[in-house]
Amino acid sequence: MRDVAIVGIGQTPVGELWEKSLRHLGHDAVVAAMRDAGIETADALFVGNMLSGELSGQEHLATLIADFVGLRGIEAAKIEAACASGAAAVRVGMMAVASGLADVVIAAGVEKMTDTLPDETTAGLALAADQEYEVAEGATFLALNAMLMQRYMHEHGVSKRAFAPFPVNAHNNARGNPNAMFPMAISVDKYEKAATVAPPINVLDSSPICDGAAAVVLVPYDRAREYGAGKGVVRIAASASATDTLAVHDRRDPLFLEAAYLSSQRAFAQAGVSRDEIDLFELHDAFSIMSVLALEACGFAPRGRGVELGESGAITLHGRLPITTMGGLKARGHPVGATGVYQVVEVVQQLRGEAGPNQVANARVGMAQNIGGSGATIVTHILVGED
Amino acid sequence: MRDVAIVGIGQTPVGELWEKSLRHLGHDAVVAAMRDAGIETADALFVGNMLSGELSGQEHLATLIADFVGLRGIEAAKIEAACASGAAAVRVGMMAVASGLADVVIAAGVEKMTDTLPDETTAGLALAADQEYEVAEGATFLALNAMLMQRYMHEHGVSKRAFAPFPVNAHNNARGNPNAMFPMAISVDKYEKAATVAPPINVLDSSPICDGAAAVVLVPYDRAREYGAGKGVVRIAASASATDTLAVHDRRDPLFLEAAYLSSQRAFAQAGVSRDEIDLFELHDAFSIMSVLALEACGFAPRGRGVELGESGAITLHGRLPITTMGGLKARGHPVGATGVYQVVEVVQQLRGEAGPNQVANARVGMAQNIGGSGATIVTHILVGED
Repeated sequence: MRDVAIVGIGQTPVGELWEKSLRHLGHDAVVAAMRDAGIETADALFVGNMLSGELSGQEHLATLIADFVGLRGIEAAKIEAACASGAAAVRVGMMAVASGLADVVIAAGVEKMTDTLPDETTAGLALAADQEYEVAEGATFLALNAMLMQRYMHEHGVSKRAFAPFPVNAHNNARGNPNAMFPMAISVDKYEKAATVAPPINVLDSSPICDGAAAVVLVPYDRAREYGAGKGVVRIAASASATDTLAVHDRRDPLFLEAAYLSSQRAFAQAGVSRDEIDLFELHDAFSIMSVLALEACGFAPRGRGVELGESGAITLHGRLPITTMGGLKARGHPVGATGVYQVVEVVQQLRGEAGPNQVANARVGMAQNIGGSGATIVTHILVGED
Repeated sequence: MRDVAIVGIGQTPVGELWEKSLRHLGHDAVVAAMRDAGIETADALFVGNMLSGELSGQEHLATLIADFVGLRGIEAAKIEAACASGAAAVRVGMMAVASGLADVVIAAGVEKMTDTLPDETTAGLALAADQEYEVAEGATFLALNAMLMQRYMHEHGVSKRAFAPFPVNAHNNARGNPNAMFPMAISVDKYEKAATVAPPINVLDSSPICDGAAAVVLVPYDRAREYGAGKGVVRIAASASATDTLAVHDRRDPLFLEAAYLSSQRAFAQAGVSRDEIDLFELHDAFSIMSVLALEACGFAPRGRGVELGESGAITLHGRLPITTMGGLKARGHPVGATGVYQVVEVVQQLRGEAGPNQVANARVGMAQNIGGSGATIVTHILVGED
């Protein structure tokens, strides 16, 4: 297997981008990544996307974007794994390079969620849940996460206020990210007074519906220095994917993200690094409860004590384990099929020392974890920065 | 790169399978392929599918099927490239094994098209065309193919009757395939009298709307003999994918399938075989015109003379280049995201000598070509059978 490096990154701002269509978003991110890598063509384009068919009436999306970008002729395919589509596309791109079947691959994620009415978009998102055993009963993702949060608070005797540090940290970090959707600070007081959406989840626990696209350029590690104009090479030290039951009620323990455990364990082993060596962790904070469950399943905190990483300040930019360093899903935004690629792009920014005011000091090993559904598909990447 | 072999195949009958849901179809094909390979688990499942979101309200499909089959925990992702989704999933599965990131991979294709009204299904299929520049103008796939056929007849002075041998051959071959949807012979006379759907295309030029699923098991070539109970090893000698503009009107020459040319040339080069060495060719006869254009773009016939391969009988089971040997899209059926996997399964049946009454004598090298949209994504595989 060939080692694989990331030599180019690109992203659009995240927000309600009514002036940009699906294909324009994909175009902008791909072109930005190609410029960053200094390439004019590629062998393949893999696009992570969940809802183009449902919300934009467009499948065959990867070929459309390849065509629109001017890459007619190259290989293209769309990769779908619900909200983990982005990281799944990065992983397929990595496989293409690692196998030797391609030399220069673009992995992108794109999602357009704001051209439809909110209830249409919410119904679209529910396509990631089990249609026959969850959605048919009226369970949206919000409802499923609300039940998980309520159960967590009950099982572990944790107050709602204990979750506040996660959105507070995310919003604080978003202030330093010019592409973030919500770059404004929030206080614990504001969190506690925020409108309830589905108890106990309030609006500041919830990532927004939005549009966005991001892309990375992947090449063989031993040729990485030919690209990117000396910006530094970022090696993909690990890529691992695991699944769980689609329906939350089928899980052995709904409060343990088994797929996060499996994929992070595989990733630590592949990369040959321990948890303590992770300098930053872009985790999947679609809802505050997901941050806590991911931290616990990956072993960064014991069961029931993930919230303490928030309370202690460990998750901030200057803490022991900075998370959501550019705003996370909560404040950068969560264009679902693009999110996993944004996470990888942001880890690369940190490892290159390009994170501006949000730079994590001496960042060398970064982890990104993208979650599909309520923990049903979880893809973990570990990246290592080199000079 | 590790060489990759196919050691297990599975398929469901193709038809209007109202008693089977999407997940049951996927289950049946995957379990059949696992039994054929003699495996009880796998590292990953990649599922080719185009319309699960649009027609069944279900995305996150690969994880759902992994769960439903009892493979909880393994990697899973859905691969979408319109009607080429199936072959794209086989290709991603091959990359996973070739790269060394996985050892035992299941690539499946599944599509459920008959639980919706025909016009809903037709609208769903149009998601593979350019939504803004083709579909908005009212162009369905049928309309696009009708224009291509009309143009072909005009450019090359070819009669409609010249296309008859393609559906006649497909239906004749379907009689020997217990999984075919339309296993009945048709005559040239019946073809000429068939009801017009969109002139010049008639109902016997058109592949049917249907349900079905197929799957293959992929392992490293050098370990292939550990699987499949001595059924013979089939090596993936080439896998290549190429694209063209999504919109037909953007093509340099609408009658030349440039992506078929590119992907077949790459495949011949990878496999180190010439066109003359291909013993059978499972091509993508979604409409009769597509068979002819594919044969020409792959170099099996000069421009404007693909129809002669039908007239001469070269395409029949005993001809020089047997095509659609198990009935093809026309008569086996075309469950869109599954079709590319059916094609690969059927090539494996031929190379193993398991094609029953449809066996192509001394078949050793088989080619499968899966087309997404009106030629926008084309994936070509060349398989070689070994004892």
